Amino acid sequence: MLIVKKFGGTSVGDKERIFNVANRLVEEYKKGNDVVVVLSAMGKMTDVLIEQAKDINPNPPKREMDMLFTTGEQTSVALMCMALATMGIPCVSLNAFQVQMHTTSNYGNARIKRIDSERIKNELEQRKIVVVTGFQGIDKFDNYTTLGRGGSDTTAVALAAALHADACEIYTDVDGVYTADPRKVEKATKLKAITYDEMLELATLGAGVLHNRSVEMAKKYGVQLVVRSSLNNEEGTIVKEEVKMEKMLVSGVAADEDVARIALIGLKDEPGVAFRLFNHLANHNINVDMILQSVGRDKTKDISFTTNVDSADEAIEIIERHFKEYESLNAEKEVSKVSIVGAGMQSNAGVAAKMFEALYDEGINIRMISTSEIRVTVLIDKKYTKAAMNAVHEAFSLGEI
Amino acid sequence: MLIVKKFGGTSVGDKERIFNVANRLVEEYKKGNDVVVVLSAMGKMTDVLIEQAKDINPNPPKREMDMLFTTGEQTSVALMCMALATMGIPCVSLNAFQVQMHTTSNYGNARIKRIDSERIKNELEQRKIVVVTGFQGIDKFDNYTTLGRGGSDTTAVALAAALHADACEIYTDVDGVYTADPRKVEKATKLKAITYDEMLELATLGAGVLHNRSVEMAKKYGVQLVVRSSLNNEEGTIVKEEVKMEKMLVSGVAADEDVARIALIGLKDEPGVAFRLFNHLANHNINVDMILQSVGRDKTKDISFTTNVDSADEAIEIIERHFKEYESLNAEKEVSKVSIVGAGMQSNAGVAAKMFEALYDEGINIRMISTSEIRVTVLIDKKYTKAAMNAVHEAFSLGEI
Repeated sequence: MLIVKKFGGTSVGDKERIFNVANRLVEEYKKGNDVVVVLSAMGKMTDVLIEQAKDINPNPPKREMDMLFTTGEQTSVALMCMALATMGIPCVSLNAFQVQMHTTSNYGNARIKRIDSERIKNELEQRKIVVVTGFQGIDKFDNYTTLGRGGSDTTAVALAAALHADACEIYTDVDGVYTADPRKVEKATKLKAITYDEMLELATLGAGVLHNRSVEMAKKYGVQLVVRSSLNNEEGTIVKEEVKMEKMLVSGVAADEDVARIALIGLKDEPGVAFRLFNHLANHNINVDMILQSVGRDKTKDISFTTNVDSADEAIEIIERHFKEYESLNAEKEVSKVSIVGAGMQSNAGVAAKMFEALYDEGINIRMISTSEIRVTVLIDKKYTKAAMNAVHEAFSLGEI
Repeated sequence: MLIVKKFGGTSVGDKERIFNVANRLVEEYKKGNDVVVVLSAMGKMTDVLIEQAKDINPNPPKREMDMLFTTGEQTSVALMCMALATMGIPCVSLNAFQVQMHTTSNYGNARIKRIDSERIKNELEQRKIVVVTGFQGIDKFDNYTTLGRGGSDTTAVALAAALHADACEIYTDVDGVYTADPRKVEKATKLKAITYDEMLELATLGAGVLHNRSVEMAKKYGVQLVVRSSLNNEEGTIVKEEVKMEKMLVSGVAADEDVARIALIGLKDEPGVAFRLFNHLANHNINVDMILQSVGRDKTKDISFTTNVDSADEAIEIIERHFKEYESLNAEKEVSKVSIVGAGMQSNAGVAAKMFEALYDEGINIRMISTSEIRVTVLIDKKYTKAAMNAVHEAFSLGEI
């Protein structure tokens, strides 16, 4: 078996943790498996590098920032090999140049294009543990690039795909994907399995253990992921194409409390109004999430939408300055989004209704609704977030998985 | 003009020093010159990395040590470019992969084989300041290597040779090469120029501002070096093939106080004795410096030699265990070597005699003598080191250059 394992920054944050990871790798290696491990920069090293850079230049060139960042993972992989060497295990550390991790030139947010897996295969044939820098790549001009948030997960998935690995294990500080945030929903339980699409919806909703791009890539190349804890030996959650669901309609409940709703009242009911509104916002890089447009009456209509709460004031300013085609504007920041996600709802009617019923029973008013094939999201008053999550969690019996 | 400049670790040790170097680079750039700068790791960063490694593995694999070390210079070059960017100067940082600094595979002490200067030339054509990592290389298998002590000087010389640079300036914490160590000889003066061979002798004698390998490479490729201070604008010392000397016989006086003398009395006066003695020492990696063999009489002879004081006890132990062909052994650790170096002495008789006379006038006894074409070295009692240096310095009028 060829197994790709990825450990994040906290998992290699100090000497003790490095040896903890090393022990896990050796355990796998001694089963006779080929082991490739992807590491992030140690603990807060990335933050330290950012601070160091900003001290010199508050607005450092992105290319040079990536040049600086890549020292972080290189430090991790070198130290890991030193730890493995104390155990007498043959190993080799490799950076983005050495594995030819080709990406686009988009510094700070590059995308992987291809990997030359020859070097890794050669090292594995010599029965070495191969320790690869996550998060970093090189572009076609041999400049360093970095992959952006969650980049090391993507590195691991890309390597697993390129090497046709038998498993790709993502080790984090939680031991899997839960039906809801355990800090908010006491009865939340760990899922044995979840589909790529469900995971993507959850990631988007801010409940993501994995970053979107890694899940997208895993889906595209059919890489089965396992999300596990680096601190215990629990089984974790498998992320794959299809999950046997039986009566399971919903996999999880997620909430996002960093939301604001902006409503524009009394727009002309004519073509092009929505285009003009959202075009102004897009031109200023304001991300809009849910959009609701009322049915026109008396030749006017209303449009409401949500944005991240941090963008709300800027969005309002843009609208007031550039888009004047409305009678009144009102904004609310004390709102939150609560969503249910489940591949099962595609073939089952009544899932949304069941959610609405659970909220009604709690006396929670629904302000907006938005749905995808495998998700239902409602906007509610922020103060009811926790109550809503628990009510919905209960309604779909998620605590009994 | 294409100018290669090298700055050591102390010159880029903190924000203020980084900007100090950046200012000097911009000054050169604004004259219309092409500027390539080679940087070492910041201040004590290399020590920090060693400590970090030893904490994990007291005996870390050399390959992984080099993988770790190379993060040091990469940090320096990225931060330097960030500093240059604040001044609006186009620049790019390049590491050993990006300049294709090919070396042997001898981790920790690799030698440069060739450089692909295309990338640097392209960047210079775009009028960028090119900031290159010193000290590091890659071997033919794309592993990182490092060049050993003084490695960044060698990087600078190699780049100057590959790029056919018009000048190669080595910036250090002293402002040039002196006729003697100013801490020991008050009248020591800075040399305007010195030959490669003189510089090599001085480097070997521990008075080296430049590391041997960089001077050897400069000599081989005819790269004219300038040693200058990073803290002021003094002219520095030029190191080149030939120096006009007029009456200058001697360029400098150097001393080495870390010496021990071991004398073996009553060896058989027959062939092979010296071979057996020094073969045993060589097999145990003991470096021997001066060797003196007495003329045989009564069918016996004596051999004395010097080693570094740290190796003396081991040398004695080896001799006592493996080489038993002597009557008695005595060792002295309170000795030092004082040398004069000068390309001028090749064509001038009486230089050595003048040195001996100066020492005699001071009442200093000479224990051993060794000479090369451009050097005379004497072994004396350690307590007279400073007096001997001053006497010789005076005798050759070195304070009046």
